[in-house]
Amino acid sequence: MREYFPGIGKIAFEGGCSDNPLAFKHYNAEEVVAGKTMADHLRFAVCYWHTFKGTGSDPFGPGTLIRPWDEPERPMEAAEACLRAAFEFFTKLGVGLWCFHDRDIAPEADNLAETNKRLDKIVDLAEQLQQDTGMKLLWGTTNAFSHRRFMAGASTNPSPAVFAYAASQVKKAMEVTQRLGGAGYVFWGGREGYDTLLNTDLKRELDHLARFLQMAVDYKQKIRFDGQLYIEPKPKEPTKHQYDFDAATVIGFLVQHGLDKEIKLNVEANHATLAAHDFQHDLMVAAANGMLGSIDANRGDLLIGWDTDQFPTNLYDTTLAMLTVLKMGGFTTGGLNFDAKVRRQSIDLEDLFHAHIGGMDAFARGLKIAAKITEDGKFDALLKQRYCGWEEGVGARIERGEVGFEELEAYTLKHGEPAVQSGRQEMLENLLNEYL
Amino acid sequence: MREYFPGIGKIAFEGGCSDNPLAFKHYNAEEVVAGKTMADHLRFAVCYWHTFKGTGSDPFGPGTLIRPWDEPERPMEAAEACLRAAFEFFTKLGVGLWCFHDRDIAPEADNLAETNKRLDKIVDLAEQLQQDTGMKLLWGTTNAFSHRRFMAGASTNPSPAVFAYAASQVKKAMEVTQRLGGAGYVFWGGREGYDTLLNTDLKRELDHLARFLQMAVDYKQKIRFDGQLYIEPKPKEPTKHQYDFDAATVIGFLVQHGLDKEIKLNVEANHATLAAHDFQHDLMVAAANGMLGSIDANRGDLLIGWDTDQFPTNLYDTTLAMLTVLKMGGFTTGGLNFDAKVRRQSIDLEDLFHAHIGGMDAFARGLKIAAKITEDGKFDALLKQRYCGWEEGVGARIERGEVGFEELEAYTLKHGEPAVQSGRQEMLENLLNEYL
Amino acid sequence: MREYFPGIGKIAFEGGCSDNPLAFKHYNAEEVVAGKTMADHLRFAVCYWHTFKGTGSDPFGPGTLIRPWDEPERPMEAAEACLRAAFEFFTKLGVGLWCFHDRDIAPEADNLAETNKRLDKIVDLAEQLQQDTGMKLLWGTTNAFSHRRFMAGASTNPSPAVFAYAASQVKKAMEVTQRLGGAGYVFWGGREGYDTLLNTDLKRELDHLARFLQMAVDYKQKIRFDGQLYIEPKPKEPTKHQYDFDAATVIGFLVQHGLDKEIKLNVEANHATLAAHDFQHDLMVAAANGMLGSIDANRGDLLIGWDTDQFPTNLYDTTLAMLTVLKMGGFTTGGLNFDAKVRRQSIDLEDLFHAHIGGMDAFARGLKIAAKITEDGKFDALLKQRYCGWEEGVGARIERGEVGFEELEAYTLKHGEPAVQSGRQEMLENLLNEYL
Amino acid sequence: MREYFPGIGKIAFEGGCSDNPLAFKHYNAEEVVAGKTMADHLRFAVCYWHTFKGTGSDPFGPGTLIRPWDEPERPMEAAEACLRAAFEFFTKLGVGLWCFHDRDIAPEADNLAETNKRLDKIVDLAEQLQQDTGMKLLWGTTNAFSHRRFMAGASTNPSPAVFAYAASQVKKAMEVTQRLGGAGYVFWGGREGYDTLLNTDLKRELDHLARFLQMAVDYKQKIRFDGQLYIEPKPKEPTKHQYDFDAATVIGFLVQHGLDKEIKLNVEANHATLAAHDFQHDLMVAAANGMLGSIDANRGDLLIGWDTDQFPTNLYDTTLAMLTVLKMGGFTTGGLNFDAKVRRQSIDLEDLFHAHIGGMDAFARGLKIAAKITEDGKFDALLKQRYCGWEEGVGARIERGEVGFEELEAYTLKHGEPAVQSGRQEMLENLLNEYL
Repeated sequence: MREYFPGIGKIAFEGGCSDNPLAFKHYNAEEVVAGKTMADHLRFAVCYWHTFKGTGSDPFGPGTLIRPWDEPERPMEAAEACLRAAFEFFTKLGVGLWCFHDRDIAPEADNLAETNKRLDKIVDLAEQLQQDTGMKLLWGTTNAFSHRRFMAGASTNPSPAVFAYAASQVKKAMEVTQRLGGAGYVFWGGREGYDTLLNTDLKRELDHLARFLQMAVDYKQKIRFDGQLYIEPKPKEPTKHQYDFDAATVIGFLVQHGLDKEIKLNVEANHATLAAHDFQHDLMVAAANGMLGSIDANRGDLLIGWDTDQFPTNLYDTTLAMLTVLKMGGFTTGGLNFDAKVRRQSIDLEDLFHAHIGGMDAFARGLKIAAKITEDGKFDALLKQRYCGWEEGVGARIERGEVGFEELEAYTLKHGEPAVQSGRQEMLENLLNEYL
Repeated sequence: MREYFPGIGKIAFEGGCSDNPLAFKHYNAEEVVAGKTMADHLRFAVCYWHTFKGTGSDPFGPGTLIRPWDEPERPMEAAEACLRAAFEFFTKLGVGLWCFHDRDIAPEADNLAETNKRLDKIVDLAEQLQQDTGMKLLWGTTNAFSHRRFMAGASTNPSPAVFAYAASQVKKAMEVTQRLGGAGYVFWGGREGYDTLLNTDLKRELDHLARFLQMAVDYKQKIRFDGQLYIEPKPKEPTKHQYDFDAATVIGFLVQHGLDKEIKLNVEANHATLAAHDFQHDLMVAAANGMLGSIDANRGDLLIGWDTDQFPTNLYDTTLAMLTVLKMGGFTTGGLNFDAKVRRQSIDLEDLFHAHIGGMDAFARGLKIAAKITEDGKFDALLKQRYCGWEEGVGARIERGEVGFEELEAYTLKHGEPAVQSGRQEMLENLLNEYL
Repeated sequence: MREYFPGIGKIAFEGGCSDNPLAFKHYNAEEVVAGKTMADHLRFAVCYWHTFKGTGSDPFGPGTLIRPWDEPERPMEAAEACLRAAFEFFTKLGVGLWCFHDRDIAPEADNLAETNKRLDKIVDLAEQLQQDTGMKLLWGTTNAFSHRRFMAGASTNPSPAVFAYAASQVKKAMEVTQRLGGAGYVFWGGREGYDTLLNTDLKRELDHLARFLQMAVDYKQKIRFDGQLYIEPKPKEPTKHQYDFDAATVIGFLVQHGLDKEIKLNVEANHATLAAHDFQHDLMVAAANGMLGSIDANRGDLLIGWDTDQFPTNLYDTTLAMLTVLKMGGFTTGGLNFDAKVRRQSIDLEDLFHAHIGGMDAFARGLKIAAKITEDGKFDALLKQRYCGWEEGVGARIERGEVGFEELEAYTLKHGEPAVQSGRQEMLENLLNEYL
Repeated sequence: MREYFPGIGKIAFEGGCSDNPLAFKHYNAEEVVAGKTMADHLRFAVCYWHTFKGTGSDPFGPGTLIRPWDEPERPMEAAEACLRAAFEFFTKLGVGLWCFHDRDIAPEADNLAETNKRLDKIVDLAEQLQQDTGMKLLWGTTNAFSHRRFMAGASTNPSPAVFAYAASQVKKAMEVTQRLGGAGYVFWGGREGYDTLLNTDLKRELDHLARFLQMAVDYKQKIRFDGQLYIEPKPKEPTKHQYDFDAATVIGFLVQHGLDKEIKLNVEANHATLAAHDFQHDLMVAAANGMLGSIDANRGDLLIGWDTDQFPTNLYDTTLAMLTVLKMGGFTTGGLNFDAKVRRQSIDLEDLFHAHIGGMDAFARGLKIAAKITEDGKFDALLKQRYCGWEEGVGARIERGEVGFEELEAYTLKHGEPAVQSGRQEMLENLLNEYL
């Protein structure tokens, strides 16, 4: 069997004193933190699209990344080579989960029937490779945004034939996800939005989106696929406006259409910041509604207005994200999928390892810090104290719905000006810094 | 009676050939457009806070606007003078509606009981001035964000005593709005959000916000106030994050809490753009849900990251806004409130007239253009054609819920690759330009 | 000769009453406005890259635009076909100028010598087609950003071999520009910047950039190329930071390196707004320094953080741009180049015409409005009045350098508090609206 | 003498194990790092305006911070009380430097002569308090942006009388800065810009700005003030556009007007990010030009579009800033001035200590990490290697100006396609993380 990453062996945990850039300094899969192994807490996944199909192209130039598994002349052989390279990478990196779009792993053919056959063939191989390696599928998805037919949307396309095509693709992608034991299935509607309102019937498109999701829920139940469905919010890009703008928008939409029990969120860091939210904000909004399912672990550049999909290395971000994950009791079906790509100039195969090692170490540190913060309980105690007024008296009565405006006016007239207390933001920020 | 704007008479409509800057060139109140007078279509309102209480201060300097009605030594006399000046302005401008916060019109006293008395006193005068002039109240609201007690929020404050205080204020403000015949009541939760997640229990605060709104709905029913309740979305400022982020977020929240039949939206242009949406986007989202109630007519500077609250003059914006308003059948309780302020350097009293005349003329032009577009039907025809696939066949069956993934896969396998059509954005943009 | 745009004839001026979308309603090439024909004022150019080589691809999908001149199997035949199609388009559109990158018109070969031969061959054809049609070249340029070798910059690359390669390309591109009678040559340094400061020697790269430009100036003089050199600022994209950030940065850099007499600016609307400036701001900054050479006429979406390169249709923008152009006395070597692309969904050949017609009409209207404003002189008079204090007295003495801090302190102590006057922004904005 | 911060003693260094929030955990003034004490490296200064005059007000509400030294009824007594409180704070905090605007320390009177007298009186006290405590002045400045007279600018005002007034203020402020032994004098032109181009003669205003700065240089030489002059760039706010946009713009402007030998830059973190630059970018641009004089140490919120002036706590920022400072050889006249304010909700006096302690600890950590990085030399070695081609051969000849386009074309034709190397961004980011 051809080796695609010669000279690189299994990435080992060597601890913080190592200066081997191809070793983990913090991520120790079997180390127990807060009652579970790191591996079980973090549930890292490698994404297929960026890591194996990414070319380094951008709007101002074609790809720079030349990969040994690219054999574009014979598409199916290239697809198999790529899949084998991927499983070699997974194994050497020591990650247990992966994610893919249907079109990443198998190239589209001239018609859907043929395309589906190709997909089946590659899924056969994936199944075998999963078995051989113990890898599992975090989630699968369909790519219903790249092909020209989807230029005006998939389920929100002005043409019902495109809606139907997208439905056919999701049906098949859900089936292969089920076959590969996928723990989830993601909807990212890259073109579910609009470029100009001048040619858009917004209400009708939103109704179609809801209809489509309902069909997906129905079909999932029919085939007894037990994976979790997720929507991944993004505010824009490639469209001017994407309907799944952010966590709050998606949750509202799901509630409005009676889908909030069936579909959770896959929150991506860079998508949150493109929507002008802190990563932690969108995590918290999802978690507060019991709908934080999984995470796309990357980072954007907050001074840049497009999706840079960089690998996560910021320890503040990883700490605050893991704090939210710990607080909600950890992942069940979800995990941390590195929806991130090496930079256009990072042309060496080794860079793929650096990128993932850095991301895994950053989240391992975030986990350990978050566990320490949780254990110490200082932040929790300060929070509890700040809201203690709601535990009894008028606060508790408000929460129980026992009082209205009239009772509260009487209360105010009696008690006078409320006391105020410092928000203590600087002290809390200093405290956080002491954990880093 | 003292005259506050001497030398300025009633602003007249002089038509497009006039070069009198203190005349309307486009707004002709009684002119009938698309079946109604301009006045009835546009329902302009002057806001009290910016126009009469605005000082021109900003974070880098105190006020520049010296007004003849400012007599700060005697607060109640100053309040009366200001109200009389306002009604003189309304009358000279020829606008029929106004809006206010409780604390704009009457200064706060040492305690709530005394403050309420002051408010009653000023409302007596307002009632009389309304009677004398024929002015009506578009909506009232409370200011529960300026005072120190609200620094950490009103209904989302960590302290139940502040929640109670805010409830008392809203109760009273709703009562005086009712007394003045207000057609609506607005909630803009300037501090309903957070500055840092480190000290915030987001879920609890959101629950309190819902509780508060329910109390407001209950009290409204109790006192039989027949005005419409509105929430005015804003994404941030003064807070880092405001819970009422944008139209979609607010609608989702209202649906989630069973409040969407009771509360509509007051959409502000500058708030929409601060949330990274076109003004028209937020109007359309609200209208698509049957929840576009009223509009705060201003504009931001899209290259500036704070609320500039400039007077609306952009004809593209006013045209597209009025297109959406016409499409939904026009305002019922709502209107166009100029939540806009003259620039810090616009220190002359005359500038207040220029500002409002410009805004009114810009919306009058927008209305006329939108009416022409609607009448011609070109855009509608193109839109209809783009979505015609949904009127019959598989499109109609999808909309009626008669098919699922399996039927659609069969359809796709049978019909093959869908046809695609040009989105024609450039042609549509050119067409729009021809109407301007 | 094959016709690439069958069914579309020469675009005619039909005036504002026409509802033929494939006619000019405002642009009448020979009509005289402010002493010159519209054609002479506006000097429209079509860009080769977007209009003939653009595919509609974006980071989330490959191209959607299928062109009859694409024959990718035989690159040189395809290049010739494309050039012929372009000249057919130019002629039918009735535009007199074009712009290109070397790599747009002729495909790169295996080595530079061969690539240059290919370029020469296509330039032969271009020369003949120019002669046949009367078309002229507004400016030429090189593409030193798409190829993998330039991934870390061209003149600011860490490798001197890449610097040398870029120099070789510019040398050749300047030669062919000269041969085609180009009125100018543009530097847009798409990758002259950095992705991360961690691997960047910023000072050294800036020095290399200056060295490179000096070489270009030297070579231009050597070959007696009499076209104007321009730098086109852009703040970022594809790089995180581009050294030619905006007009002010470029001007400062040119002054610092003694290049400001040799190189002017080509200001692009969308690049200005990506740098958080109004389009007119960057035009004015360049014009104020006598360095506004040419314009890339497009528009961005101010709510979107990447270069959307849309066709210019906003009448405010075209009016204010033409006001600045008229004020500086009109273009000499420069013109209005449509560095703009049809949307990904605008897949019809006709859309290319709609796009350019819309842009030309929008600038024709902008020109006529700007000419009217200039002729009326109202804005000028108000500006003159605002600054009249500098024409005599202490103002004139300050400007002449006759006084310093001590004299001014004495002046202030004597004259006391300065008078202030309204900035009259609202009145001016209304006045502008009256011209539209 | 009244104690303004009772219960808080001198802040001590207690080391990383301390959990006393009112102790330093990292900043140990006398500890030697990289050859100098921390105090000498960091040269912390407290700013007078935010820390002692800040009220917590924002555009949506008046102040929340009630200070024991506020006695607004008697302005001069209040000014003295405030100054004494400030020196108590400086002493307890253990910081050696401070900064102020003239109008912070002494209130404006009815005319300039009287205002100057007040200023002299307070400066007498400041001089004595400096002597008593050993405090030094990092820099002084004038406030020529808050007063109504400056609403349209100071040196760029349309009125020469305002220019003269500003000159008088700067003259006096420079004199008192000299008297207090200030190591520098800063120009931050808060209103040196415009609100609308419709009423602005941009070129004339820029010329006036240059004239003004030249006068300041002249006067400085005349009075033999030996402090360093600085300009502090900011892109906007309060104006729409500020002429001193960012480091590159200011440097270009200074060079253009022959002022670059006389004036350096005071770079503020939050101003850099408002200009869409990383903090480190603007530091590097200034340092690359030998013009990095001093730093305003704060931070913004990159998702917020206004100046939040938060205390610096981000360890990435402090590390990268100190790396740049170490690389340029450390501060000479400059230092780290905390131009930062406690949040509106941070109403306790103790919060002022938390804020400064956090900022000082964050920079102390940044310094230690940067010193370690510098000492290890790994980043330097990688950088050197990346640019090694310039040390000899064609690279060296390019840098020495020995070759032009022709030689480089010959070089390229001979050597063929340049080799490319990975930019290694992920590896470098991981390496940086290992130092934190």
